[in-house]
Amino acid sequence: MWSRLGLLLLLACAPAPAQADVRGWIEANRARILAEYVELLSIPNVAADTTNIRRNADRLVGMLRERGLQARLLEGGDRSVPPAVFGEWSVPGATRTIVLYAHYDGQPADPADWTVTEPFTPLLLSGRHSAGGRPLPLPERGADVDPEWRLYARSASDDKAGVMAILAAIEALRAEGRTPAFNLKIFFDGEEEAGSPHLGEILSRHRDLLASDGWVIFDGPTHPSGAPQVVLGVRGIAGADITVYGAVRPLHSGHYGNWAPNPAMMLARLLASMRDRDGHVLIEGFYDDVEPLSPAERAAIAAAPAPDEMLRREFRLIRTEGGGRPLAELISQPSLSVLGLRSADVGADARTIIPASATASLDMRLVSGNDGRRQFDRLVAHIRGQGFHVTETEPSDEERARRPLIARVRDRGGYNAERTPIDHPLVRSVLSAAQAGAAGDVVVAPTLGGSLPLYLFREVLDAPTVTLSLANYDNNQHAEDENLRLGNLWEAIAIAAAVIGGD
Amino acid sequence: MWSRLGLLLLLACAPAPAQADVRGWIEANRARILAEYVELLSIPNVAADTTNIRRNADRLVGMLRERGLQARLLEGGDRSVPPAVFGEWSVPGATRTIVLYAHYDGQPADPADWTVTEPFTPLLLSGRHSAGGRPLPLPERGADVDPEWRLYARSASDDKAGVMAILAAIEALRAEGRTPAFNLKIFFDGEEEAGSPHLGEILSRHRDLLASDGWVIFDGPTHPSGAPQVVLGVRGIAGADITVYGAVRPLHSGHYGNWAPNPAMMLARLLASMRDRDGHVLIEGFYDDVEPLSPAERAAIAAAPAPDEMLRREFRLIRTEGGGRPLAELISQPSLSVLGLRSADVGADARTIIPASATASLDMRLVSGNDGRRQFDRLVAHIRGQGFHVTETEPSDEERARRPLIARVRDRGGYNAERTPIDHPLVRSVLSAAQAGAAGDVVVAPTLGGSLPLYLFREVLDAPTVTLSLANYDNNQHAEDENLRLGNLWEAIAIAAAVIGGD
Repeated sequence: MWSRLGLLLLLACAPAPAQADVRGWIEANRARILAEYVELLSIPNVAADTTNIRRNADRLVGMLRERGLQARLLEGGDRSVPPAVFGEWSVPGATRTIVLYAHYDGQPADPADWTVTEPFTPLLLSGRHSAGGRPLPLPERGADVDPEWRLYARSASDDKAGVMAILAAIEALRAEGRTPAFNLKIFFDGEEEAGSPHLGEILSRHRDLLASDGWVIFDGPTHPSGAPQVVLGVRGIAGADITVYGAVRPLHSGHYGNWAPNPAMMLARLLASMRDRDGHVLIEGFYDDVEPLSPAERAAIAAAPAPDEMLRREFRLIRTEGGGRPLAELISQPSLSVLGLRSADVGADARTIIPASATASLDMRLVSGNDGRRQFDRLVAHIRGQGFHVTETEPSDEERARRPLIARVRDRGGYNAERTPIDHPLVRSVLSAAQAGAAGDVVVAPTLGGSLPLYLFREVLDAPTVTLSLANYDNNQHAEDENLRLGNLWEAIAIAAAVIGGD
Repeated sequence: MWSRLGLLLLLACAPAPAQADVRGWIEANRARILAEYVELLSIPNVAADTTNIRRNADRLVGMLRERGLQARLLEGGDRSVPPAVFGEWSVPGATRTIVLYAHYDGQPADPADWTVTEPFTPLLLSGRHSAGGRPLPLPERGADVDPEWRLYARSASDDKAGVMAILAAIEALRAEGRTPAFNLKIFFDGEEEAGSPHLGEILSRHRDLLASDGWVIFDGPTHPSGAPQVVLGVRGIAGADITVYGAVRPLHSGHYGNWAPNPAMMLARLLASMRDRDGHVLIEGFYDDVEPLSPAERAAIAAAPAPDEMLRREFRLIRTEGGGRPLAELISQPSLSVLGLRSADVGADARTIIPASATASLDMRLVSGNDGRRQFDRLVAHIRGQGFHVTETEPSDEERARRPLIARVRDRGGYNAERTPIDHPLVRSVLSAAQAGAAGDVVVAPTLGGSLPLYLFREVLDAPTVTLSLANYDNNQHAEDENLRLGNLWEAIAIAAAVIGGD
């Protein structure tokens, strides 16, 4: 087991010498890497956009082949299912096989919400837009490139940055005439942001092709201190769309206000019943299954710098939930978040009506011990406990005639949490390589707050996973104005090269 | 004072003989009236749409002049302020002057919400769309026109129906060589649905021109039984847009869920604190100022058929608010309704974020005794009482740094309630004319649930008002798929002719 002392020693060790060459190569090729990356980001990549998602996949097959790898698409269904992109660099005599994973699809993006550029028209800025960053032309080859510059586009950080880091690292090793320290396989997922509904199918269909000793997942942000993170596990995710109903159509708020039930108000009351003021979830049994952290995991959390104060300043929060307990502790617990609310219109668009329905979307993050199905059922039981008749479809006239309170609950899908033990050989080798490749400290996080379907690799392939989280933490991922700090891209390439090279 | 017996007698009296001619004229001209009305409804009429609102006004001046009236625009500010349309038919020797009012602007309409047609592409259906009504071509002159047919368009009922009824009634009287029983003035308002922010200014500027013995307001729906309503007063309206804030930008719900405050959840809790499950408002002092109904007003309510059971069936409601008390009683009380909710996105568009803010729009209906300013202040005090710092503008970084809970509260504007006594001569003459013009019973309602700025006529012009509500009650006013039952238009024309003719 790792002692806290052991961790601190690892965090403090110096970059390996082999990295000097890689860093030199990156510096010499920054403008070219950037130009290629901008081209990749220009292809819209929402998983549901079949035509464009396949343009991405085809381009990635091409980029792998240009780097001398064998590459192909792995299909998970009909043409509407985004394919995974597979690449391989076989190393004669290698005793281990490692798969590097990143996902090339991105969250949906509404151009109307973006203030800097259109989601798929990448734009380089001299810094964070909200801190006064100004648009810049792409640098000429050999020009100076400031690591603080930021590239704005959907998936600039989540997660085409992972894709690009892997591709550039392969190129760097090729340029230096090196080979991977293992049989290298590449797997670029095409529907991670859609909840990876076909990932299990793809892994099953290509079980032999994907056999390995472990997967290294390139995804997620650095520690808020800026240090690259080696993440042992992720929270799982479950979720629901809840719609409650009033009259069968919107009613004039003057003629019927006080008499017709108001679904927006019903929804408010239902949501308010789910958590107390401090964010503690009031759904019965919500915290029952949580597996406590091990002493070594607790030590890793304690060893990492606590980002809370900095984050509160950054996000302009004077108060956080959980009674002021630290972020690292709180994300090791399951959560329930309202993702959005919608009922009729507000502000200048509001009409003086009692809406016919009101909808909230929720997610529940899961930790080791939780089961998504079980948490979802507890949520539904809570809704029933508040007096609602729960249905999966739009209520019929007959249901409306019998039930005063009706909630339609749609399962948003999801998957369970996953965690690889801190003393697993895969964790040890990746941590060592990350430390060799990184310019500064590396942080070990037992659990990333975000979710990835890592349980599938264990379930379908019996493979452990470890995650490298390298994008700037303030990247606006999943939101408008997503961006990547260029320094984080260079660092990610260096770390990917160290992992592949076995530094 | 009116006794209950007196009311019932009035309700039971028969149409006057002069009406036979008017009804004959309507029947002979239905197709032509309809064609002219479709043309009027085709001009978009949202008050904020300056260009189109003035196209409406100019067309109405033209329609008044075609009927031999003197007509002009009454401006209430610069060109961005919708003008009122004024018309006059002077009657030599007349001792009284009456102004007929209707409004030609309509509620905003999002074409995406409309299922039958576009809001400004009127479509005739063989019945209510939800009851299987099918599109029909406009009838040829002389063709049969079923009174159950419905015309779908924004403002088809609210309130271009009032405008068209007045215009057609004038034409009917001209055709029969009759003159009004008083000096007739016409006033078509152009921003009623925007809360009539300049009506007071227009009335002030043209005080002499608009001098009268009373105003007859053509607006609102019939009693749910289908009977035309003579309405003595209206609820007033106040309202607020409330926005609460979390972090300065949307945050990843995985990385920060449990730690970052969730504004959608804060808003839910705040709204839930405002009313109990039964719709009773919990804001301190909310019911303090209500003037009780007089015995004659109570008698009028008791004399009208109670529509509650029918409405519950129609709206598919098994339970209504207010502990099951009747609608007529509940709308004589102030109300608080959530008009809409908005925070990030829901359903398929939802992203896994903690939203940066959440907004609710509310309205508060006011009754005699209430003051809108006072109710608004009580709402703000309630929000403060829930721990929120209340601001009128987007919170600054400095405010965020000092206040854990911030609510931006925007005043949606509004006006107070107004009621003319049931024994006022204006009420008596209009009720008598309505009864003469109507095919069946007429209902007297002390208070309409909806709001009109009637207090202005009293405040600026010292004029009493009485309202005729004639559109089908199931007209979807203020919502998508607004429609007018044609039988209600013919009835409205007949009643308007009886009012003008002094039947």
